[in-house]
Amino acid sequence: MTRPDRTVAGALLDLVADWGVNRLFTCPGSTEAAVLDAMVDRDDLDLVLTTHEGVTVSMADGLARATGAPSLAYLHANVGLSNGLANLYAAQLAYSPVVVLNGLKPATIQARSGFTTARRTRDLVGQFVKDDWQSLTSDTVVEDVNRAFTLAVAEPAGPVWVGLSQDLLDRPADAPQPNVSAHRVDTRVAPSRAALDSAARLLRQAQAPVLIAGSEVGRAGAVPAMVALAQRLGAPVFMEERRSFERPGFPTGHPNYRGDYDVNHPLVQQADVLFFVGGRVFHEFEPAKRPSLPPGATVVHSHPDAQQIGRIYGVDAGLVGDPRLVLEALAELLGVDADRPAPPPVPAAEVPPADPDARYLRPVDAVLAVTEALSGSTLVGDVTTAGGLLQRYADKPTGESFFVSSSGSLGWGMGAALGVQLGQPGRHVAAILGDGVFQFGVPALWTAAYYRIPVTFVVLNNQRYAAVGAALRRFGGRAVQTHEYPGTDLAGPRIAEVSTGFGVPGVRVTGLADLRDELRSARSADGPALIEVMTDPDDFGP
Amino acid sequence: MTRPDRTVAGALLDLVADWGVNRLFTCPGSTEAAVLDAMVDRDDLDLVLTTHEGVTVSMADGLARATGAPSLAYLHANVGLSNGLANLYAAQLAYSPVVVLNGLKPATIQARSGFTTARRTRDLVGQFVKDDWQSLTSDTVVEDVNRAFTLAVAEPAGPVWVGLSQDLLDRPADAPQPNVSAHRVDTRVAPSRAALDSAARLLRQAQAPVLIAGSEVGRAGAVPAMVALAQRLGAPVFMEERRSFERPGFPTGHPNYRGDYDVNHPLVQQADVLFFVGGRVFHEFEPAKRPSLPPGATVVHSHPDAQQIGRIYGVDAGLVGDPRLVLEALAELLGVDADRPAPPPVPAAEVPPADPDARYLRPVDAVLAVTEALSGSTLVGDVTTAGGLLQRYADKPTGESFFVSSSGSLGWGMGAALGVQLGQPGRHVAAILGDGVFQFGVPALWTAAYYRIPVTFVVLNNQRYAAVGAALRRFGGRAVQTHEYPGTDLAGPRIAEVSTGFGVPGVRVTGLADLRDELRSARSADGPALIEVMTDPDDFGP
Repeated sequence: MTRPDRTVAGALLDLVADWGVNRLFTCPGSTEAAVLDAMVDRDDLDLVLTTHEGVTVSMADGLARATGAPSLAYLHANVGLSNGLANLYAAQLAYSPVVVLNGLKPATIQARSGFTTARRTRDLVGQFVKDDWQSLTSDTVVEDVNRAFTLAVAEPAGPVWVGLSQDLLDRPADAPQPNVSAHRVDTRVAPSRAALDSAARLLRQAQAPVLIAGSEVGRAGAVPAMVALAQRLGAPVFMEERRSFERPGFPTGHPNYRGDYDVNHPLVQQADVLFFVGGRVFHEFEPAKRPSLPPGATVVHSHPDAQQIGRIYGVDAGLVGDPRLVLEALAELLGVDADRPAPPPVPAAEVPPADPDARYLRPVDAVLAVTEALSGSTLVGDVTTAGGLLQRYADKPTGESFFVSSSGSLGWGMGAALGVQLGQPGRHVAAILGDGVFQFGVPALWTAAYYRIPVTFVVLNNQRYAAVGAALRRFGGRAVQTHEYPGTDLAGPRIAEVSTGFGVPGVRVTGLADLRDELRSARSADGPALIEVMTDPDDFGP
Repeated sequence: MTRPDRTVAGALLDLVADWGVNRLFTCPGSTEAAVLDAMVDRDDLDLVLTTHEGVTVSMADGLARATGAPSLAYLHANVGLSNGLANLYAAQLAYSPVVVLNGLKPATIQARSGFTTARRTRDLVGQFVKDDWQSLTSDTVVEDVNRAFTLAVAEPAGPVWVGLSQDLLDRPADAPQPNVSAHRVDTRVAPSRAALDSAARLLRQAQAPVLIAGSEVGRAGAVPAMVALAQRLGAPVFMEERRSFERPGFPTGHPNYRGDYDVNHPLVQQADVLFFVGGRVFHEFEPAKRPSLPPGATVVHSHPDAQQIGRIYGVDAGLVGDPRLVLEALAELLGVDADRPAPPPVPAAEVPPADPDARYLRPVDAVLAVTEALSGSTLVGDVTTAGGLLQRYADKPTGESFFVSSSGSLGWGMGAALGVQLGQPGRHVAAILGDGVFQFGVPALWTAAYYRIPVTFVVLNNQRYAAVGAALRRFGGRAVQTHEYPGTDLAGPRIAEVSTGFGVPGVRVTGLADLRDELRSARSADGPALIEVMTDPDDFGP
């Protein structure tokens, strides 16, 4: 068979490269043959092979989060798409511009219920993406993918899906190639002048304003603008609640920083104006027993996604727009007064000392050791029960220094950390994981080992689904009475050994001194490493 | 907080037990607390903990396939459901009565985009199940789940999904408990007398009839009836094409057996009547270059699912109904003539001898060693390139002796084998896997180890996505010219070591003698074991 000089697959890859994408994350199948074949001669685009679609998507997501640029995940058929959905949901919640291309079986057998075809593929993916469609002709493939990139990066950014039938990709590329630069638009928006005036007035009049820095501040590169506003107002700043946190919007070492948002915190209770900047209000884990806003406080909420404003609680002023543009406009309206002093410091809550005879490390001590030893590293958190501790103690100097997902998609952090590292080649990146999480993300170890991506995986192994134990404890039924917690015992695996088997050198530690030593050496390693830290199976968290 | 004596969750478990289900497969989260708590005092229902929803679903599927009875998978929230979809597709293709219960966040936060909620949960699952709905009140939960079981087992059987909000399950159980026995109905159907007469006439007149045994023959327990018909007609019997094969419908050792259906086989080409019993016609891997039926042959197709008949190719007679009822009715219509002699034997194709100096085992030699050593075991196949070899050489004496999935969902076989073993406690069960497959199913090792389920995992490790390599070879482009096959190299992992780390003793073998030894000892082990067989990375199959 003679192949055309330039196939649609080749033109597609040209387009991808024009968008500045230089990595193609995939876990391919036979439907992707034309694209793989077109990769043979390219040196502007690296294929990054993954061995599970959860990794494909979370790597692309991590890279997009770290760089702010679009990234590409190429999935195989209906089964590959299904496997990638949970992490696509994670990308969506983070407004991460991941373009998902999905190889589909040839169009002639799609309606015939052919092998690995879905009756309604778009039903699977539609709710996780900004748009989804299937290319219908070979002439529109490149244009369709160009539109997917255009839409993915348009603010508020997010994933987009395009289905590509196998039979469209090996045809000659006849259609004109889109001029990508004409599709790169600054889509950030600022609120109306009236809305900005209204918010500025509330902030100017506030006696005790409180700022809540959301994840979108970090994504917009608006952390310096957030710092400037906090200093200008002399306001305490809280980080967005853990349940919706994706990345920091304020430096945790700043004198105005007061920890995670909590409606019961005295400064929140005393606030007269709460200004939520670029976060969700709220992403509820369970029904609130009482409102998560203090009674009587004036609420200002800014978010690039209009759907987030006034969604649950009403607001006194709403500002739809890019956090940086919003903060800069407010700074101008508020005038050039000198900074006000930081709010008075509050003594940090002391961690009670550990029982020296305890058989296991407490999660809090392990987390403290990790966050201290890895200060200055970028951390990617994917840990359930100890997640609150990690959130509290991790050093977060910038909007690019800490990433988690509010999706509840376990295992996301293993692939995401690899993607973040590719996007931050100069920094040390560590993934902080639970042992339950590890089993969801384990195929990421293969990719880490194969490409020698220097990520340190730290697994807090309490041999438990402790979050489920905590839920049973809250439930307060027979489990509590009998001290039997069904479905929570995860004893058995030697995670370090599993990791070594995958080619990522693993070590198990049980004490803090060993943990610190291993963290130090992992940090300077030129390849991936895994540290398994044994922690107390009976500590279900606070 | 005082708990009611009997919660809806407890009543739900009573109902499940009434359906004869004695295992609850789950990978729980906090939304499942009420159900887990209700498990504390039960001794009629075992919780089987899995560490990834792909395993939850495939274990339930395997158990249902092995027993013919309904099974239960309890999934967590939108993310757990997403992770289980690819294997739910596998269950659907096999007509496997898996009831999927899905813990959802409390109803009050579902529309508020709460943590791990989906905007349209049912869109995710609808195309993989017979029906899907969300319980709307605590009084209807048990009735809803009862209806799910009723529907799942109704022929043609298949998965059913019910969404259960967390807040419905901890309420007092007030609704009357359904009388399950009144919902157990023999839903098998037989075709009309006219349809049976028409098919019987065609078979009676046939000079060279050929039978094709489909997977539904095995599921219906109709293998003896299939043997009787084949002997009565003296007809050669082929197994359903590999791409739609789920389980055997004919004993491979029977003198009338002639291998897998292939339109190019001389007996198929010479047939005047082809009778497809309980299989798909066809499940196409790629567009057929020419029809998969010989020109001019009369086609009779029987299937319990009316949607399968006449779907692609027209038929001369269609028989909607249970394979056993259909075969027994036809036997009666055809009369009690003596059996006709088996068709003349055909010499088996010889496998060319291996190169004694070859560095790697050939897949064919590994498969032959496995199928010979494990003759009499139940095999669960989940291997891509070597799948055709396994299909050809595996001994399949009954409809319960060999299981594969036509879903293309990699990793299915690892959990499925565990479920099959639970359903066939007296038999040795082995999963035959590829190395790519292994990485998709690896969390199944945890469950195998924890419960000491005596399955032998055999991984043919060719360190390749060889199926992708084969697709590139068929594509015939730059990859073939340059001998560079992007996205196919899976080198690195020491699978036996990974397995040992999970608690399933693993061993790597490179030669046939060692392979045979290890198979022998694994077969008599009282717990799980894994054998990693290194095979030729450059053998992309025939």
